[in-house]
Amino acid sequence: MDQLYGGIEAGGTKFICMVGSGPASVVAETRFPTTHPDETIHQAIEFFQPYAQREELAAVGIASFGPVDLDPDSPTYGYITTTPKPFWSQVDLRGCVQEGLKVPVIFDTDVNCAVFGEHYWIPENRPLDPFLYMTVGTGIGVGVLANGRPLHGLVHTEAGHMAIPHDRQRDPFPGVCPYHGDCLEGLCTGPAIARRWGQAAETLPDGHPAWELEAEYVALALTNLTYTLSPRRIVLGGGVGQRPNLIDLVRRRVPELLNGYIQSPWLSEKIAEYIVPPALGTRSGVLGAIALAIVLNPQNNK
Amino acid sequence: MDQLYGGIEAGGTKFICMVGSGPASVVAETRFPTTHPDETIHQAIEFFQPYAQREELAAVGIASFGPVDLDPDSPTYGYITTTPKPFWSQVDLRGCVQEGLKVPVIFDTDVNCAVFGEHYWIPENRPLDPFLYMTVGTGIGVGVLANGRPLHGLVHTEAGHMAIPHDRQRDPFPGVCPYHGDCLEGLCTGPAIARRWGQAAETLPDGHPAWELEAEYVALALTNLTYTLSPRRIVLGGGVGQRPNLIDLVRRRVPELLNGYIQSPWLSEKIAEYIVPPALGTRSGVLGAIALAIVLNPQNNK
Repeated sequence: MDQLYGGIEAGGTKFICMVGSGPASVVAETRFPTTHPDETIHQAIEFFQPYAQREELAAVGIASFGPVDLDPDSPTYGYITTTPKPFWSQVDLRGCVQEGLKVPVIFDTDVNCAVFGEHYWIPENRPLDPFLYMTVGTGIGVGVLANGRPLHGLVHTEAGHMAIPHDRQRDPFPGVCPYHGDCLEGLCTGPAIARRWGQAAETLPDGHPAWELEAEYVALALTNLTYTLSPRRIVLGGGVGQRPNLIDLVRRRVPELLNGYIQSPWLSEKIAEYIVPPALGTRSGVLGAIALAIVLNPQNNK
Repeated sequence: MDQLYGGIEAGGTKFICMVGSGPASVVAETRFPTTHPDETIHQAIEFFQPYAQREELAAVGIASFGPVDLDPDSPTYGYITTTPKPFWSQVDLRGCVQEGLKVPVIFDTDVNCAVFGEHYWIPENRPLDPFLYMTVGTGIGVGVLANGRPLHGLVHTEAGHMAIPHDRQRDPFPGVCPYHGDCLEGLCTGPAIARRWGQAAETLPDGHPAWELEAEYVALALTNLTYTLSPRRIVLGGGVGQRPNLIDLVRRRVPELLNGYIQSPWLSEKIAEYIVPPALGTRSGVLGAIALAIVLNPQNNK
């Protein structure tokens, strides 16, 4: 029997669990709602348990919602830390899974796993470093792969909260971020769109002015990320980010904002290869968790 | 005789050349104005030639003004590319130095060398990754060290051109960037300060409102860099950045802008250890070029 790996995408509304060794070799997959941590983590462990007991499971990767503690030297390494989500604050997600399954458990943020998954499993992305994944949905997150590894630091990246220009004459909406008002998240998540226009984002038709404005903010963010990280490719995912008309508006606006400052075909005629939808669809995170389990599993690095 | 290394900080107004093996073991150092590339590059080669001829020089690092081509697979690798500086566009700086001295030549941007120098030579900085260096002077540049190496990508980082909020009621100045008007560079380089206030930045006294405004923009930039890269330390250098009163204003403003979103002592009571002046003063770049020559010299990686 080949080695199998487990992937968990631990989201705020649902968990996705997968056993396999890659996108083309998924052995089992399940999704269930995120309820109380005792119940939800137990459900995840139960799903993997048969594979662990047969010693087929080499390691598990977890792609977690945040904020999380990624410092291996910290006493709360692998915890979900200060989330406002009821019951999930200070939960030792990584420790519980490791305790339950007795296999190495690799732990990172949802977006760092998504960026790693899109990079690791898609051959044409492999040479592209730095490589970014930005999700725009109920929140905004940016996963960064730099010099071969997901980027961690003081904490993890929180690029959703970057400050961007906000023209209040064009858009008087004050923003919904409880910390910053009109930061990127405050202006252009799904909930911000719904609040500004008085209807859910998914009900706004193509051609509605909401989408030009949304593209403006997403393009400002991608322009700033281009200046700051000089990525070779940016994947735009998430429930809002994957709205089909949006990516074309963003691809048109980014070169206008750059205004020729950086000379590169990827930022002009090849922009459709620079800003791309996720090749793994909605499975970037869980498949990235499996990829991290393969690559960072201490057993594979001896 | 110990191995010696050469460092060149190739700036738009002056070249600094150094022979040595570290900050405490500098054998020779010289500076001369940047004139025509034929003359200036010849002068640099002449300075290093005796060491090269005695076979004491193991490698040379170059910290170059930009934009530059950092792609080793490109036919113009090591060139200064599209600079508006007369005579310096499309100059093969790396190739000329390698041809003249017959030693390996490592090539990077001025700010990537500065970040590498501050990280490599200052023991307390060594464990801190990601690690940033931001220079604010006649231009603004940000060098990024991530997962152990300077960050390169599509081109090199150009974080000086990030878009930031610009309150035109508080500051009606339209900015001086020829590409973007009021991007970060447009609002807060030395020339922008001089144009806004009608006098050179260095003549503006402490307490002048120019410094509160300057601190606001620098703090917005460092806040965005904190969200985007999650650095463990940021070095603030450059002629304007090293103005003594500025760093304290910036240290006060960054936590206010973050507004408690990221919980870390480094962003509150330890902020003075998070945003620091360059430990190597004005020699971060040239000493970083030497550090890169030591670490990335292919002879040392066999």
